[in-house]
Amino acid sequence: MTSKSKKAIILLSGGLDSTTTLAIAKSMGYHPLALTFRYGQRHEIELEASKRVAEYYGIEEQVTIDINLQVFGRSALTADIEVPKNRTLEEVSTGIPITYVPARNTIFLSYGLAFAEVSDANDLFIGVNALDYSGYPDCRAEYITAYEKMANLATKVGVEGHNFTIHTPLIHLSKAQIIRKGIELGVDYGLTHSCYDPAPGGRACGTCDSCLLRKKGFEEAEIEDPIEYE
Amino acid sequence: MTSKSKKAIILLSGGLDSTTTLAIAKSMGYHPLALTFRYGQRHEIELEASKRVAEYYGIEEQVTIDINLQVFGRSALTADIEVPKNRTLEEVSTGIPITYVPARNTIFLSYGLAFAEVSDANDLFIGVNALDYSGYPDCRAEYITAYEKMANLATKVGVEGHNFTIHTPLIHLSKAQIIRKGIELGVDYGLTHSCYDPAPGGRACGTCDSCLLRKKGFEEAEIEDPIEYE
Repeated sequence: MTSKSKKAIILLSGGLDSTTTLAIAKSMGYHPLALTFRYGQRHEIELEASKRVAEYYGIEEQVTIDINLQVFGRSALTADIEVPKNRTLEEVSTGIPITYVPARNTIFLSYGLAFAEVSDANDLFIGVNALDYSGYPDCRAEYITAYEKMANLATKVGVEGHNFTIHTPLIHLSKAQIIRKGIELGVDYGLTHSCYDPAPGGRACGTCDSCLLRKKGFEEAEIEDPIEYE
Repeated sequence: MTSKSKKAIILLSGGLDSTTTLAIAKSMGYHPLALTFRYGQRHEIELEASKRVAEYYGIEEQVTIDINLQVFGRSALTADIEVPKNRTLEEVSTGIPITYVPARNTIFLSYGLAFAEVSDANDLFIGVNALDYSGYPDCRAEYITAYEKMANLATKVGVEGHNFTIHTPLIHLSKAQIIRKGIELGVDYGLTHSCYDPAPGGRACGTCDSCLLRKKGFEEAEIEDPIEYE
């Protein structure tokens, strides 16, 4: 198998980070398969963005998994808790935010591992970022390294001596650097959705943590954000 | 908080191993919360057993999670592949069996981690066994150790310096030893279900790998298996 045809699982939410991650995987010559989650998120409209992005990139296989994290509650993204608005960037980037979903990336990666195993893919891409989301424990490099080690012990792939690799191309980039990288690779950010609390119709609120980080990223990158805000 | 009231998540399928694990957790003074999975298994009847067992033990909270591993296929437990019958015990205990479900324990533990985090539980019990199921990569001690390390990096609990512990009290026991331990603790194995391929009505087939291991265990323990076989 040439490296050009190597399959890779991409965790694709339809947001700015995962879309850039997909573009990077493509640019590295991987054949991407997309994995998307409907987990009771308030911003379920991001699923439409994930489909637009997958179509734009000609992804042959996109699997959408229904998981119900609402049964566990305790996060503003899934439970009936208000999404924080108009926080300062210091507030956004410190501490574990209320929008943290318990064990979310661990659950997402576990489905990714299953998908990789049945697809004979040894590679998985996830757009986690340690810089802007320092408060999310499951976005840190040491977490990903530990996950990868566990995954290589968990599966046939590991037992048979292949290496399962988790790629985190954005982990040390600022939002502005991510956007510049994406623009270099021809990403159309007009397809993406970032807002945690969109208005009816899907327009981004412009004031939740995710909108604030996105807007700051485009400002710093000196690039115009193609999406519209409330 | 006294150790008597410490919460622990128990992965409870309703089988012999998880039921014994629950009895052990209770005997150690934990306050158990049960987590059960409906994952498109052919032997969905085990869910009824899990409810019987949870009721018997007065479990206050049993969460059943619907996950769809059928979307990934490739296992006799979830896909349309015949369950192997009447294999020798050597065949049963070597190699990775067709009944291996990709990344199953990894997915189960990930939900367990989420449940633990929202319940303020630092302990989780899983009835994996390395002896009788040497072919399942995700039943080995080194896998569990790696998972635990990852889990402590994944969550608020880990960040805040608490230790998340995965207990595997059965990991080095033979099936006969498990049964003897359970009988000591007063387990009623008549409540449990082990068969991978039950007959209509739920009676155990007696010839699948799971039935064969169970029957051998009771024989070696010199205890009568209270369930009926086809």
